[in-house]
Amino acid sequence: MPRVVDAEQRRQQLAEAVWRVIRRDGVTGASVRAVAREAGTSMGALRHWFATQDQLLSFAMTLVVERARDRITAVLRAGAPLRDQVLAVLEETLPLDDERRAEGEVWLALTARALVDADLAALRDRAATELSGLCAAVVDALAEAGELAEGVDAALEAERLYAVLDGLAVHAITRPSALPPARVREVLAAHLAELRDTR
Amino acid sequence: MPRVVDAEQRRQQLAEAVWRVIRRDGVTGASVRAVAREAGTSMGALRHWFATQDQLLSFAMTLVVERARDRITAVLRAGAPLRDQVLAVLEETLPLDDERRAEGEVWLALTARALVDADLAALRDRAATELSGLCAAVVDALAEAGELAEGVDAALEAERLYAVLDGLAVHAITRPSALPPARVREVLAAHLAELRDTR
Repeated sequence: MPRVVDAEQRRQQLAEAVWRVIRRDGVTGASVRAVAREAGTSMGALRHWFATQDQLLSFAMTLVVERARDRITAVLRAGAPLRDQVLAVLEETLPLDDERRAEGEVWLALTARALVDADLAALRDRAATELSGLCAAVVDALAEAGELAEGVDAALEAERLYAVLDGLAVHAITRPSALPPARVREVLAAHLAELRDTR
Repeated sequence: MPRVVDAEQRRQQLAEAVWRVIRRDGVTGASVRAVAREAGTSMGALRHWFATQDQLLSFAMTLVVERARDRITAVLRAGAPLRDQVLAVLEETLPLDDERRAEGEVWLALTARALVDADLAALRDRAATELSGLCAAVVDALAEAGELAEGVDAALEAERLYAVLDGLAVHAITRPSALPPARVREVLAAHLAELRDTR
């Protein structure tokens, strides 16, 4: 079905145009008109896909989540030893290269916008539930492998890991010179090492 | 000098009007016109204080930092035992009541806006330097009091503490039902307890 494939590809191209506008001009600048110009298409053609700015922003947010989810699925399928796998999975959510940095900037911009936009807030909350669930799964996997000390509060450790992860993400996005990718990896690895040794 | 005091008070009232507009309508909505309406003043009178939207947003950001700094100074002056003091100082930066929640929402909105606004980025970076410096001072104080194990990497622990702090802040702002104030305190206290026991 080449037309279905083309349609999905076209939707992704348009969402990437939304990302570029958000990164350059902020959420405010991401009007249907500006995105059509960025994508080299007409407003009429763009409206075939996204009728309003809200739909553009929602799809831009959805694409961030889908891309991270696809990469995480690929890491899980590769089936590395648990410690390596845990680190690799969590790193897929952090802005450690240009692609993930673009996602991170769009995520931060739309997370803030979601404070005053109920549709985006619903998307943001679903993404947060997914990511905090991933952190809980990581802690549970370490516990099942006998790598957590007895008596550790798994729910609290999941919440703390999730805070480290998003704190590092915000800092790497906003302070790239103070927190380059190698340092982000180092802090995350230290946290996981400590988690395995928690008394 | 009553006039100087009045002037400072008026500036704060106007900045609080900016906060209310940002929290209700987002950064986009915080035009000079909208803020004048919110503050019950004319655009001409408001322009006496803030000529442009950029100046409004900069002052709104500055006020967030100043308020947190004032509360932290007060905690330090109160002179509690180190462990209590460290927790109390860090809690002043977290959205644990209505006042700090308002600050947190404005901080998140302006942190995102700073991705595409160089003036705001400079303010945000100064605030980040101050807060990451506070985290470093906390780790150093614990080390000097003999409460950190030997061989702990103080710089890395400061970075990790800063990530936990801002991660908790973002989550408490965006997921208040999943992460109520009592839970934020619990996770932060657990992190500090673990830091003191780090091997």
